[in-house]
Amino acid sequence: MPSLRFPSLALIFSISGSIAAWAQAVPAPQAAPPANFAAEQAAANAADGPRRTPPRSFAVPTDEVSPEMRKLIALPFPPHMDAAPKNAAEWKELVDRRAKLAIAALPALKEKLKVDVQPAVIGGVKAFIVTPRTIPRANRDRLLVHVHGGGYVFGPGEAALPEAILLAGFGGYKVISVDYRMPPDAPYPAAMDDAMAVWKAATKMANPRNMAIFGTSTGGAMTLAMVLRAKAEKLPLPAAIAPGTPWSDIAKIGDSYATNEWVDNVLVTWDGWLGRAALLYANGRDLKDPQLSPIYGDFHGFPPTILTSGTRDLFLSNTVRTHRKLRRAGVIADLNVYEGQSHAQYGADMNAPETKEAFTDIAKFFDRHLGR
Amino acid sequence: MPSLRFPSLALIFSISGSIAAWAQAVPAPQAAPPANFAAEQAAANAADGPRRTPPRSFAVPTDEVSPEMRKLIALPFPPHMDAAPKNAAEWKELVDRRAKLAIAALPALKEKLKVDVQPAVIGGVKAFIVTPRTIPRANRDRLLVHVHGGGYVFGPGEAALPEAILLAGFGGYKVISVDYRMPPDAPYPAAMDDAMAVWKAATKMANPRNMAIFGTSTGGAMTLAMVLRAKAEKLPLPAAIAPGTPWSDIAKIGDSYATNEWVDNVLVTWDGWLGRAALLYANGRDLKDPQLSPIYGDFHGFPPTILTSGTRDLFLSNTVRTHRKLRRAGVIADLNVYEGQSHAQYGADMNAPETKEAFTDIAKFFDRHLGR
Repeated sequence: MPSLRFPSLALIFSISGSIAAWAQAVPAPQAAPPANFAAEQAAANAADGPRRTPPRSFAVPTDEVSPEMRKLIALPFPPHMDAAPKNAAEWKELVDRRAKLAIAALPALKEKLKVDVQPAVIGGVKAFIVTPRTIPRANRDRLLVHVHGGGYVFGPGEAALPEAILLAGFGGYKVISVDYRMPPDAPYPAAMDDAMAVWKAATKMANPRNMAIFGTSTGGAMTLAMVLRAKAEKLPLPAAIAPGTPWSDIAKIGDSYATNEWVDNVLVTWDGWLGRAALLYANGRDLKDPQLSPIYGDFHGFPPTILTSGTRDLFLSNTVRTHRKLRRAGVIADLNVYEGQSHAQYGADMNAPETKEAFTDIAKFFDRHLGR
Repeated sequence: MPSLRFPSLALIFSISGSIAAWAQAVPAPQAAPPANFAAEQAAANAADGPRRTPPRSFAVPTDEVSPEMRKLIALPFPPHMDAAPKNAAEWKELVDRRAKLAIAALPALKEKLKVDVQPAVIGGVKAFIVTPRTIPRANRDRLLVHVHGGGYVFGPGEAALPEAILLAGFGGYKVISVDYRMPPDAPYPAAMDDAMAVWKAATKMANPRNMAIFGTSTGGAMTLAMVLRAKAEKLPLPAAIAPGTPWSDIAKIGDSYATNEWVDNVLVTWDGWLGRAALLYANGRDLKDPQLSPIYGDFHGFPPTILTSGTRDLFLSNTVRTHRKLRRAGVIADLNVYEGQSHAQYGADMNAPETKEAFTDIAKFFDRHLGR
């Protein structure tokens, strides 16, 4: 099939059937580039403006990356990356299918990290109380609130728990994990209303000076939005927060939405299920509303913040833009970026040393900034 | 010329004359992707292993990026990116040509930042003493040592000075900038011998507890290598260091050497002048020698370190790998990553707010960790 092996560029961008044809032409990693290759790239970038890159191939990085993490970095794109559910039933089917996978992994996670989980209702909202079987003396009067990730659609019920268990286990903290309502049944502001109701109730269970809020991705955005809303409503603020690779700008604004598109093997692109979930959650509201995209909020007065990302993360820019805006507002803000990792891979394998490292770093940051 | 407008992929990678042809086919930023585009990317990445990306185009980022920095980010690749000097004379011609540009910009820089420069010989090595016209009381007994960047070939004489002037001016510190010997005349270890001779002499001019070492790119690698060598030779260590986007791994190991190749518009690729300079400097020595690639050194006992990079930086991985190795060794290590910036662009325009921000952040970090 010579027409498949040597298609024109016009074909690649317009006609199906050229699948992977360019990939065959991509030079193998480490191979010497063809003659004139550099000159061609220079010519393609000869004018001021957008940067243009040719077809490329990136080997799995090895240095400062554990074998466990290399396996995650090498994975193909997830099958649901371009999911486009047509109605509420199709969304629920997709959400349930993924939730089952997360829930199936919980027993081993709880056992390895020696953590117990109890369902609860806190502030009228469904939640889980995640308790390490041994709590260090310094953490006895401390309490964390966890808001899970999943693009405001994934992670219902117990599927919310993996990250809460990781920080409870590696950090030795008691954690409340919020099982907030989500689309398609409950778009914005239901999730934030639930998270704030739990936060308010939790501040009666412990001294807010001994408390922190954390979460990854959507949970990172909600962590930031919760502090904005607590400021606005004159509620107690947490003593520290850990928004991991936060979805600070839900509107596809930020350089790594482009530069790490098709590089990140977790989220892959905004133009798949992710952007569709954003619009489903926003339900017509302006995507630049700081409660949806907290990067547009005022970070003055925020508590000390630790952020985590990876060099291949589609949300690398969400993370570093948030870091810079926090520092520009005078906030203590710490940043960890992991070599080669895509979105939130620092929490994807409980056996990867990077997972222990990331959550231990967050735990130590909380220990420095929380009262006892 | 239809053969130019619709070349085959084989042509693009093997025959000159197809320059920029694919670029014309790249979808404009923000345009909807063609039908089946996502499926094609998934198919190209269906197996575990290297990540493959199609031709892409990245708009200049705007949010959290100043107008001055946007201009730098929009620039074409530099004309010398693929320079391949064939002998010492050709290297010197290239180095001199670039040095003239740097030196021409110095008067305005000194005037804006109110800094004076005096040539000196320190420890038998040529250097410059860079003195702010006003030094804050807290900095009167403090002294910084600067090692310039330039791939171990660029930045001779006064061309070394821009970064030293930026930190002297924005930070209010007195700085010694080392005019170390370089290839083609003097390969490794001449540069390090010179830098160490200055460091030894400088530690007699001030209390090492009141001193820091800093530098960007090659200067960042030399900063790290100087601490390794000072440890080995039982010399006093600085109280803090600021390796900016350090060339920690000179051997093209690290994920962003691949992911940010043709994205970074300053260094662009290791396979141009940069890798050639690495080999010229190493002069046959193993590129993994920690004095050449300090990432392979032992970071235990290092002083507090602040690192700076950008999301498009070819050395993003050099920077974050160094950050992680430092933290894993128990060192206080701070990380700033700027949105959209390529290699060392945080120091490229004295009028960009990001330049003031980056050097002020380094100055504050030194203020926290240096004695008085």
